[in-house]
Amino acid sequence: MQGSPESTRSAEGGTVTLVGGGPADPGLLTVAGQAALAEADVVVTDRLAPLAALDSLPPHVEIIDVAKIPHGRSTSQETINALLVEHARAGRRVVRLKGGDSFVFGRGHEEVEACREAGVPTRVIPGVTSAISAPELAGIPVTHRGVSQGFTVVSGHVPPGHPDSTVDWAALARSGTTLVVLMGIRTLAAITAALVDAGLDPATPAAVVADAARPSQRTVRATVGDLAARVVAEQIGAPAVVVIGPVAAL
Amino acid sequence: MQGSPESTRSAEGGTVTLVGGGPADPGLLTVAGQAALAEADVVVTDRLAPLAALDSLPPHVEIIDVAKIPHGRSTSQETINALLVEHARAGRRVVRLKGGDSFVFGRGHEEVEACREAGVPTRVIPGVTSAISAPELAGIPVTHRGVSQGFTVVSGHVPPGHPDSTVDWAALARSGTTLVVLMGIRTLAAITAALVDAGLDPATPAAVVADAARPSQRTVRATVGDLAARVVAEQIGAPAVVVIGPVAAL
Repeated sequence: MQGSPESTRSAEGGTVTLVGGGPADPGLLTVAGQAALAEADVVVTDRLAPLAALDSLPPHVEIIDVAKIPHGRSTSQETINALLVEHARAGRRVVRLKGGDSFVFGRGHEEVEACREAGVPTRVIPGVTSAISAPELAGIPVTHRGVSQGFTVVSGHVPPGHPDSTVDWAALARSGTTLVVLMGIRTLAAITAALVDAGLDPATPAAVVADAARPSQRTVRATVGDLAARVVAEQIGAPAVVVIGPVAAL
Repeated sequence: MQGSPESTRSAEGGTVTLVGGGPADPGLLTVAGQAALAEADVVVTDRLAPLAALDSLPPHVEIIDVAKIPHGRSTSQETINALLVEHARAGRRVVRLKGGDSFVFGRGHEEVEACREAGVPTRVIPGVTSAISAPELAGIPVTHRGVSQGFTVVSGHVPPGHPDSTVDWAALARSGTTLVVLMGIRTLAAITAALVDAGLDPATPAAVVADAARPSQRTVRATVGDLAARVVAEQIGAPAVVVIGPVAAL
């Protein structure tokens, strides 16, 4: 195909733009992200992306929901990388739309690397992360003068003590920062127990914000000691953001 | 004035909307933030807000740059709170525009509390924080599968060991998270020394991203051991975001 008009178009026109879509509310998409969507030929999207932002796209835009591709529970990252490269090489403007920010547990850098290795021009448009905005929409500031000089965002998909864990939870318990845990509902009891074992006062305020930026948004406020039980009692499921620290009582 | 048309308008119409403006690029403002600006009567803005987003506002909109109010180097927070309340009580739709996100070292919650105490309806629109987006725009992901399961964002305006510091830097050195320091250029030598004293390998990759999302954006990549000296040699000034951890070498 080398030298054909198609391959020329491919080499010159195909691009991949990673757009951090923010939490579910399309109003929290960035202006640049919205503009990238408006110019897209193909949108490769996730379950947690602001899907309502796709409603206004013209009918010729191909929308690929990677949560729906039959690959077990979720499409493998390698399959997504290959999709992005394949469509860009066909000369299309591809938008990779995610919930939150692509570089916060979004595997964005893996996709950038795959595109770079394939010679596909890529651009990254940062987004509003749910790690900060979910608490914020529930009235909880992750920092507050005189209360919290910093915050730590960790993924709870791997619990404390798991061989794949790269986080020292005992150090986090002593860090003095607000702790924000994403993907931590399933492992919440293990996480809060590890923090208390490491010396964190079980009376430390804590909260969970579920379905942030959706009409169904709910907040449960508790303490580190009883948060896991409260989340079970209130039947809170993913997506939910856990906040631990004095700011959770503000 | 009670019962007059003016006070009715005030009680019913005046609002304060905190808008996280993202870093300097107005494309990184949210769609909802842009809409709030378009409906504003008064915009109270900071030096680091995306000021270009104000260029398209109609001439009747009053723009108050709090960095320019004569109060020494910066307007006191109390003065800003009073401004917001005063304009809202006069029946105006007030937008409080900041760089980044209002709840990340933005004193957003202090302003929300002041408005709430004054009975002024408030709304908060989250923004793109420079803590994540500055590294991202420089190609550095704050998280990366197999490398970093979390990140910590701290303010460096108070150095390690300062009586006002609420952060345990030694715990952060052991936390296993990527460290992101905002407002940390002036205190960088003290911060990196504290981290190395606490056992962080001085060969740990580190970077500084200055003027993120501006045409003048610059990145300096170094190690924890030599970052402070490199920043001086390269004459890096604020605003700049420091990233420490293996991801800084990606």
